[in-house]
Amino acid sequence: MPAQPLRIWTDLRLSGAALELLHQETQPHQLILSKVPASSILSGGEPDPDLQDADIAFGQPDVAGLVNAPRLRWIHITTAGYTRYDTDAFRAHVAAHKIVVTNSSQVFAEPCVEQVLSYMLAQTRQLPLTLGTICGNGSNEWNHLRQTCSTLCGQSVLLVGFGVIARRLAEVLAPFRMHIRAFRRKARGNEGLPVLTEVELPEALATSDHVINILPDNPSSRHFFNGERFRQMKAGSVFYNIGRGTTVDQTALAGALEDGHLRAAWLDVTDPEPLPADHPLRLSPNCYITPHTGGGHAGENESLVNHFLQNFKRHLQGEPLLDRIM
Amino acid sequence: MPAQPLRIWTDLRLSGAALELLHQETQPHQLILSKVPASSILSGGEPDPDLQDADIAFGQPDVAGLVNAPRLRWIHITTAGYTRYDTDAFRAHVAAHKIVVTNSSQVFAEPCVEQVLSYMLAQTRQLPLTLGTICGNGSNEWNHLRQTCSTLCGQSVLLVGFGVIARRLAEVLAPFRMHIRAFRRKARGNEGLPVLTEVELPEALATSDHVINILPDNPSSRHFFNGERFRQMKAGSVFYNIGRGTTVDQTALAGALEDGHLRAAWLDVTDPEPLPADHPLRLSPNCYITPHTGGGHAGENESLVNHFLQNFKRHLQGEPLLDRIM
Repeated sequence: MPAQPLRIWTDLRLSGAALELLHQETQPHQLILSKVPASSILSGGEPDPDLQDADIAFGQPDVAGLVNAPRLRWIHITTAGYTRYDTDAFRAHVAAHKIVVTNSSQVFAEPCVEQVLSYMLAQTRQLPLTLGTICGNGSNEWNHLRQTCSTLCGQSVLLVGFGVIARRLAEVLAPFRMHIRAFRRKARGNEGLPVLTEVELPEALATSDHVINILPDNPSSRHFFNGERFRQMKAGSVFYNIGRGTTVDQTALAGALEDGHLRAAWLDVTDPEPLPADHPLRLSPNCYITPHTGGGHAGENESLVNHFLQNFKRHLQGEPLLDRIM
Repeated sequence: MPAQPLRIWTDLRLSGAALELLHQETQPHQLILSKVPASSILSGGEPDPDLQDADIAFGQPDVAGLVNAPRLRWIHITTAGYTRYDTDAFRAHVAAHKIVVTNSSQVFAEPCVEQVLSYMLAQTRQLPLTLGTICGNGSNEWNHLRQTCSTLCGQSVLLVGFGVIARRLAEVLAPFRMHIRAFRRKARGNEGLPVLTEVELPEALATSDHVINILPDNPSSRHFFNGERFRQMKAGSVFYNIGRGTTVDQTALAGALEDGHLRAAWLDVTDPEPLPADHPLRLSPNCYITPHTGGGHAGENESLVNHFLQNFKRHLQGEPLLDRIM
């Protein structure tokens, strides 16, 4: 226990049980509830002068405010993505001031993984088509419908991007005995499955039934999936995006769906969000779009607070924090 | 190898690769292709005089024809369900004549299991709702949508009926760390999960988030899910039927959806099939119906032939057959 109570700043919009939990479990430390709360867990907060007194920032603090907070030791971001913190300048600042930065990957990993699997199975079991069809057993339409269905079991999948989500996805896919490979810029050897280099990517794209994009948004991932990569994909394969919309050249994707090279695309993220109703991807019959609900789940705020509290205990005890990103 | 070539009768409508495969792999035995093929894998064949010469029947042979086939040693049914063979008289006949009866459970288990999981995840990830929604991040509608989503991880599931499908379903659900229980009339102790008696069923129904009906059609399963059992289910829980339509009192189910006690129902089987367009279950916004496509998959006939051939080798070598039902 430090001599002085720590000051924990948060702009997470909390109420009820989640707020109560945070209050109780951080006592006797001091909670500073920002007067300018983040409008959502996916948008950044406005500048808040109270941030400069904080030892810990929990939420979506604005970067300028963080840089001007002299006592700050730990920043806990309430999203999985952290684009606006992911700059050389900010990384240099936190390194020089020994500030630890963590995100909330683990909170969103499970719902995101289950979201991807819901897409994959809705695709192979042809739910969008079959849910709207009334036909008799043995009819030609019925025989055709059954033949359009398939099983994940025996198919191949390529995970593009390898973090908490990909690792968990590989776990839930394991019972299906799929051929699973991953692409990651720097393999670490602890992935538990074959990790490909960029040179090996075209061959992997050409031989995968399912390609799952989990890339984060940063300058090097922008339009990573461009026309060339879509053309490299296996004819009749399916593309999924659970990462960030900016990593996809959406015009190229619409073209690959239009000309029938790809069987379908399932997108939880787009650029912009929401995608306008008249965007070509909205008009494609084989493009399925959900409104960035992938990480959503009942009790999301309680999950975020619980995850923060796990790390808070570790912080007090000087242990390594979960989901450290800087 | 028996002294005489065996005569293998089939009414499976085969062509192309599947027929070629069956021909090749059964040589030098004799294939009798029925002139009255089954109209579909789910309907019974008409009487066929050729059946009486068969040593082996592969398909959907009519019961009277089987009883009058003096050389018959083995019947391999091309479905998982086998209602019309499941009578005391037929069981007595095959027992007295030492005829082995097998079905094709393993062929349909994987697609059926993946079908159920596609329903469960489409439900928890709210795909029917979110696929049609355009809303901005942070909007009230968006926050509400995300809160309606949940994860299988941490939820509870009850499998009603325990055969090949339930066993495989438990395998693919394992990574989700759900609370899994099963109901089976006679527990055998090798199920690998808690198996409940009928006395324990009400409590299990009352505490399960997902109830999955995999019961076969027989006199004792008819309307097994009646009004009382639906009322016993947990408020807000979800009912799935991948077994047979006759096992559900559909009027009672429509009522349980109408009054909001059940959150949703996902049905691959109904009574009759297809269910008329004006049936109350078709009009319920929370009832999702597919046209008995659960076991369907590309290459279904090849799968059926391959499964038969596996058993044919075992039959020739006097080994126990797969999927033996009598």
